[in-house]
Amino acid sequence: MTLRKDAETIIHAAIASALPDQAVERALSGFHLPETLFLVSVGKAGWQMASAASRILGDRIQKGIVITKYGHSKGPLSRMEIFEAGHPVPDENSIRAAQAARDLAASLKEGDALLFLLSGGGSALFELPLLPLSDLMDITGQLLACGADITEINTIRKRLSAVKGGRFARLCAPARVYSVILSDILGDPLDMIASGPTAPDTSTCAQALEIVKKYRLKLSEKALSLLEQETEHFLGNVENQVTGSVRQLCRAAASAAQELGYRPFLLTDSLCCTARDAGSFLSSIARSHQDTEESLAFLAGGETIVRLTGSGLGGRSQELALAASPGLSGLSNTCVFSFGSDGTDGPTDAAGGYVDQDTLASLQAQGISAAAFLQNNDAYHALQKCGGLIMTGPTGTNVNDLSVLLIKRP
Amino acid sequence: MTLRKDAETIIHAAIASALPDQAVERALSGFHLPETLFLVSVGKAGWQMASAASRILGDRIQKGIVITKYGHSKGPLSRMEIFEAGHPVPDENSIRAAQAARDLAASLKEGDALLFLLSGGGSALFELPLLPLSDLMDITGQLLACGADITEINTIRKRLSAVKGGRFARLCAPARVYSVILSDILGDPLDMIASGPTAPDTSTCAQALEIVKKYRLKLSEKALSLLEQETEHFLGNVENQVTGSVRQLCRAAASAAQELGYRPFLLTDSLCCTARDAGSFLSSIARSHQDTEESLAFLAGGETIVRLTGSGLGGRSQELALAASPGLSGLSNTCVFSFGSDGTDGPTDAAGGYVDQDTLASLQAQGISAAAFLQNNDAYHALQKCGGLIMTGPTGTNVNDLSVLLIKRP
Repeated sequence: MTLRKDAETIIHAAIASALPDQAVERALSGFHLPETLFLVSVGKAGWQMASAASRILGDRIQKGIVITKYGHSKGPLSRMEIFEAGHPVPDENSIRAAQAARDLAASLKEGDALLFLLSGGGSALFELPLLPLSDLMDITGQLLACGADITEINTIRKRLSAVKGGRFARLCAPARVYSVILSDILGDPLDMIASGPTAPDTSTCAQALEIVKKYRLKLSEKALSLLEQETEHFLGNVENQVTGSVRQLCRAAASAAQELGYRPFLLTDSLCCTARDAGSFLSSIARSHQDTEESLAFLAGGETIVRLTGSGLGGRSQELALAASPGLSGLSNTCVFSFGSDGTDGPTDAAGGYVDQDTLASLQAQGISAAAFLQNNDAYHALQKCGGLIMTGPTGTNVNDLSVLLIKRP
Repeated sequence: MTLRKDAETIIHAAIASALPDQAVERALSGFHLPETLFLVSVGKAGWQMASAASRILGDRIQKGIVITKYGHSKGPLSRMEIFEAGHPVPDENSIRAAQAARDLAASLKEGDALLFLLSGGGSALFELPLLPLSDLMDITGQLLACGADITEINTIRKRLSAVKGGRFARLCAPARVYSVILSDILGDPLDMIASGPTAPDTSTCAQALEIVKKYRLKLSEKALSLLEQETEHFLGNVENQVTGSVRQLCRAAASAAQELGYRPFLLTDSLCCTARDAGSFLSSIARSHQDTEESLAFLAGGETIVRLTGSGLGGRSQELALAASPGLSGLSNTCVFSFGSDGTDGPTDAAGGYVDQDTLASLQAQGISAAAFLQNNDAYHALQKCGGLIMTGPTGTNVNDLSVLLIKRP
């Protein structure tokens, strides 16, 4: 029970540190902000981040525009215009909102400053295409159908947008842009998060045309001519600051573990293998550290992959945890838990899963085979039977997942 | 180049420590052996282990029997009778050899002592069935066909043999048995290695009959009656000592790394996930430790699994290494290597694979996609193109694999 309680303490400390409010506060203290600012806040956490900035900066914000997903606004904010728009598919409201942001950017003068707050979902929510929306949809559809990777897709899409690939920051010039980015992509690549409205772009026109050739994309003349226009490779008026990334999640969990008496060891903050194998790997670490005299915490942040082999209910964090349970069987005071920082793991109401040395036996006693439930991607129903679901409710942030192995010693 | 040289140093130190000679020497120093002994040495390293014992104990060995695989004897040994027999399928020579060992065991008296040396392959090489060999083959075939796991197979087979499930040690009583086991099974379960000729058995008749029922095995009356006879659950006359296991391999690699200036961190000695995901996991650890100021070595011993998705050439160690290469790209002075301690990885002449931060670029420059070669299980040909094959030749031992991540700092 103590082990489970330690897990809950670590989970809550980690999520709290990645919440938009704390993340914005931490980031703002890293800037030397001018006395007054304009604000644009975009993303699924757009309202929350704007609200935090408003609380901290108050009247220093002269005017703001908030763009978030339908249902994600929690009410009016002083001097801010709030837009709700389509996600994951952009719609007319995305464009209307981006137009308002563009107009604000265009009105900025030398000596002005803009605080730009960006969170996950910004790619769809903040879109001002340089060609008809239907053309953009068609090209995106072709790219997805031919198996282009995310870097290739973004290399094309940045060039078809007035606000991506650093172009939004250019629109703001000569005003300065202070950009706070709540990262949901491993490694925090600034030009990839929402296709980098304020980040210098690293892709080139030559690469874009190469992709057209490679996948034999069918493009209008207009689209082709846009691909020949460079994005912004150098931006002298921007300071970008990443906050509340998965690294932050890991660090907060590590210090919470340390306060509970564990020696923390951060294995990685860029885990990207399959969920089942990550669970197996963590349990193999557990087996080889049973003779420790001090309590140990191994942490791995990132985003694992689920291989679909069945039709059950679950998510990557639940699958990782259940996959660790056979390897923990027979050990002493050892658990593995995994959770999504957004509080929603897969299409379930659980944030993740918790297993310990007794989980496998408890499942077996109920006639449940962990292996069979995993094979059916049905981790949810197995964990449900042994009290192994982690329930947090939606957290209001999204900075990937954290998996933790705890070995507790007296 | 230094990084590759460090890797070679670590590989050779690890393998040397797991060679039968060193392993036997280490184990013998842990026993208080009587002045004179009899010897039985069984397994693929049977000749090598007997030779080491002969070198160390000399005339103290009164008489010995060596049972190994065809072609694995390297010549006569003083006072020892050497048998070569079938592997992985036992044949008449296995039985003839086991009969000789049984006769020696039966001749032992109070005050006598037997040194029993066991290595991988002993399950097939040391067999004295209590029913016709063809019946045993048929039952084994049924068990394999119905998908029984290795514990289930051994629970049945131990009961059909005169020398397994602790029965060989019982035959030696009242003489004492000193048993040295070169383990090739993760976790060193004594009653599983070669079905435990000298290990107290943990399986029961009830379990054996349950397995017959579960898989609806078709057995003769003779076989059924054998399943009702208990194996040896308590053995007062045996000392078992495991040596040269994968744990030893890990420890030797860790100290070699330390001597080269790395801070070693032994993650696990019971790795058992898929090779590709283990490689990905190690590279994700590499990415999150690039800002280290000291050189780091992460070690993981065990036996990974290859998922067959193609028809190329490779082995689990080569696949693990190649799978790590994308994640290492762009890092600094960082490598991952993996090798089988037997010097043979899959059906290839390589022991394993080595990749570093430049491997992916080197492959790309040759038009080789690491992902495509992995998908075709063709790690051998990709690694061959970039000098990434580890070649040691057959080493004469087999204690599973070792994978290492090195991050070198000046």
